[in-house]
Amino acid sequence: MATKDTQIKARLPRGLADRSAADIRASERMVATIRRVFERYGFEPVETPLIEYTEALGKFLPDEDRPNEGVFSFQDDDEQWLSLRYDLTAPLARYVAENFDRLPKPYRSYRSGWVFRNEKPGPGRFRQFMQFDADTVGAASPAADAEICMMAADTMEALGVPRGQYVVKVNSRKVLDGIMEAIGVSDERQKLTVLRAIDKLDRLGLNAVAQLLGEGREDESGDFTKGAQLGQPAIETIRNVLDPDADEDDRIAALDIALANTAVGQAGRADVEMISGLVRAAGYDTDRIRIDPSVVRGLEYYTGPVFEAELLFEIPNEKGQKVVFGSVGGGGRYDGLIGRFRGEDTPATGFSIGVSRLQAALSALGKIDTSDLTGPVVVTVMEPERIGDYQKFVTDLRDAGIAAELYLGGGRFGAQMKYADRRNAPLAIIQGSDEKAKGVVQIKDLALGKKLSEQLADNTAWREERPGQFEVPEAELVAAVRKMVERQ
Amino acid sequence: MATKDTQIKARLPRGLADRSAADIRASERMVATIRRVFERYGFEPVETPLIEYTEALGKFLPDEDRPNEGVFSFQDDDEQWLSLRYDLTAPLARYVAENFDRLPKPYRSYRSGWVFRNEKPGPGRFRQFMQFDADTVGAASPAADAEICMMAADTMEALGVPRGQYVVKVNSRKVLDGIMEAIGVSDERQKLTVLRAIDKLDRLGLNAVAQLLGEGREDESGDFTKGAQLGQPAIETIRNVLDPDADEDDRIAALDIALANTAVGQAGRADVEMISGLVRAAGYDTDRIRIDPSVVRGLEYYTGPVFEAELLFEIPNEKGQKVVFGSVGGGGRYDGLIGRFRGEDTPATGFSIGVSRLQAALSALGKIDTSDLTGPVVVTVMEPERIGDYQKFVTDLRDAGIAAELYLGGGRFGAQMKYADRRNAPLAIIQGSDEKAKGVVQIKDLALGKKLSEQLADNTAWREERPGQFEVPEAELVAAVRKMVERQ
Repeated sequence: MATKDTQIKARLPRGLADRSAADIRASERMVATIRRVFERYGFEPVETPLIEYTEALGKFLPDEDRPNEGVFSFQDDDEQWLSLRYDLTAPLARYVAENFDRLPKPYRSYRSGWVFRNEKPGPGRFRQFMQFDADTVGAASPAADAEICMMAADTMEALGVPRGQYVVKVNSRKVLDGIMEAIGVSDERQKLTVLRAIDKLDRLGLNAVAQLLGEGREDESGDFTKGAQLGQPAIETIRNVLDPDADEDDRIAALDIALANTAVGQAGRADVEMISGLVRAAGYDTDRIRIDPSVVRGLEYYTGPVFEAELLFEIPNEKGQKVVFGSVGGGGRYDGLIGRFRGEDTPATGFSIGVSRLQAALSALGKIDTSDLTGPVVVTVMEPERIGDYQKFVTDLRDAGIAAELYLGGGRFGAQMKYADRRNAPLAIIQGSDEKAKGVVQIKDLALGKKLSEQLADNTAWREERPGQFEVPEAELVAAVRKMVERQ
Repeated sequence: MATKDTQIKARLPRGLADRSAADIRASERMVATIRRVFERYGFEPVETPLIEYTEALGKFLPDEDRPNEGVFSFQDDDEQWLSLRYDLTAPLARYVAENFDRLPKPYRSYRSGWVFRNEKPGPGRFRQFMQFDADTVGAASPAADAEICMMAADTMEALGVPRGQYVVKVNSRKVLDGIMEAIGVSDERQKLTVLRAIDKLDRLGLNAVAQLLGEGREDESGDFTKGAQLGQPAIETIRNVLDPDADEDDRIAALDIALANTAVGQAGRADVEMISGLVRAAGYDTDRIRIDPSVVRGLEYYTGPVFEAELLFEIPNEKGQKVVFGSVGGGGRYDGLIGRFRGEDTPATGFSIGVSRLQAALSALGKIDTSDLTGPVVVTVMEPERIGDYQKFVTDLRDAGIAAELYLGGGRFGAQMKYADRRNAPLAIIQGSDEKAKGVVQIKDLALGKKLSEQLADNTAWREERPGQFEVPEAELVAAVRKMVERQ
């Protein structure tokens, strides 16, 4: 036993969290729903371990300023570096490369699991979090990307997000590369400033983006953000492409004009156009999946189409302002990632859902209901020397498939009732010496009792009337409990 | 893209493994069954993260020779040491201590999750593996230990292990401490040799154990293991206690005699006697749960009753010899572990199942059946320019809840059929230009086709008769597929 001196503090490292029963149950239901949708699309599960060789994972995290940061790493006993995976895509690339010949191609797979980021934690930002990914490897056609987008949309609806409250936005890295080429930006730093400005369309609107593309912009607090210093024609080109009021055909036409002279841009335009055509043919309108050239995904490894699933309803932020919930998942095509191992590009596209973030969204929408989950029936211990008898009641109930437990603490009746209440027990079973002599047990309906006791005038009345409590012969205990549990 | 020079090898660090779809599905079913049993016992889920402060986990692994080994550790950016958890018990102790006041007591909880051991991997021995634990905190009574044992027995039966093919063995650390006191062994090294000898009862039998307690023993290969050098009376004492042929009452009587003069031994005897009484009262006979003083659990933190769930059927070992499958889980009482944080002992008892090992056992028993899992319906692409039409078929099938996929590779018809076969597809959907003109689709029953083609004389006959293939009007596709999938 620890003395006060040697006592260790019970605490978790920053950015790590325990999960409650309600949290686990809610996320299990959510994950089961996602899995059902993915399996309907013909995706099958595959999982990789949480530890990989550091070099196998590569360095593709957005935070480029700290190349050795972002990942938890440690050395193996043969001095080789190992890392905890930071996403589920890099390990899948390793898996596919390692098992390439025996996998069916195209290979559709899905997985959920914990990933780790050795980053500064913050509100809603953890160092361990769960992702749910689906990937198609070996299909170069944008039809594979279109399928991923439809699956993302179906997932949102299966989880109860109403149509109109979500959208899957589609763009292509090649469209963005084409824009850079069209406006003559080749400096990497300037490119990044342009991409960051484009990325802010949703939040700030077109005029603010135009300012950020030019001289710069002063926000409400008076802070000035220096712009990308583009000239007016370049800004106009981007404005035309981004115009939020354009319909899908106009948007594709605008891309066609803006990217007329760039091969990569035209390839990007063709990709998004084909995705648009395929999803429309399958009955998905622009309220579910739409082309949006402002989508910029952070990860370095994307090579073609990129997607973002956004929730459009508003929630209050930390400052109490109403803001659009935003992204709950995204992905894209990463044709080069498997090539790191195989020496030749291998077509691959995928989508990743942030499970905790999506769960928070569903919770805000009132779509996470675990109110049907009640606790076990609690069998009280009135005479400690007869614990064998009470144990038998519990076993009989369990054998009948009813969740039940024996009170194992040392408390008196009051403490036992309080315990049953904290456990959200539907019923308590009571047998003192009087009941034993008569061969009966008392069943206390705790939910009903709570309701009735609110209607009773005082404590004395409650004691006398014992609301929701009645006795049955010992032999009828299981049948009576089953009837009551089913009715509740 | 990687050139041959920069190419990274696609491989996993030793002792880590990927999981196939069949493996994931089998273990999910198994885990769901275990969870159902645990919930019936009133246990609720709680989960902790995979990373903890190293000092919070403590050092309780059996491999004491290498105090810093056994655990994957790394430093946080504030220089504090973090570790990947090596079991689920130490993190639970931290969790309970951290949330002590708001948890109901007794607190019954369960969790499954990955744990990590930085040890030398071997056949069936991994550095990442899954455990499924249940623990009761705040109940000092052996009734809590008895409950855990019954739950372990129920779990084995729920998983399909027949009665008689498993047993839950119960002992107490206090019984072992009492034996040491009774025979006058206080030297830690000699104690360890005695415990190791006792631990071998199952494998070697009583006479061999007696040799190992005395001078030593020569095994079949001629290797000599030095014994604990106990005198004859001490050896007799242990023989009486261990006698495998004794029934439960005789066994408890033997313990009572052997441990007559040791307080700790009598406390241990009383614990196992009470557990025995409680499980008998609940209807569990010695074929399911029995006292066995030869149970020695490796982990250092146990303070009272210890349990081991063993499977009794034989399987061939690496050398092809038939051996008893052995332990698939175990646990015990660890009243001091939470005290490391709280400064006072807190009663706690728990049980841990090795998920992969149990899965291997069920697989050997033929209790893991995933043969009902078929792949998705594959819609073939006969005319690539009509991919939108094919996509529509797929979407209609999915909307009807039927798992379906569009062939997304670039292969011809033969390759597409081969793909459908590898995907274990029940049906393939085909629409070439002829069918399109007639407004029909071909449905190919792949399972039936395979069966019929085996009966046909040659390939020509197969081509002409097209076994298991027929056409339906486009509008009836979904209904026809549903009917066929349901029939299969």
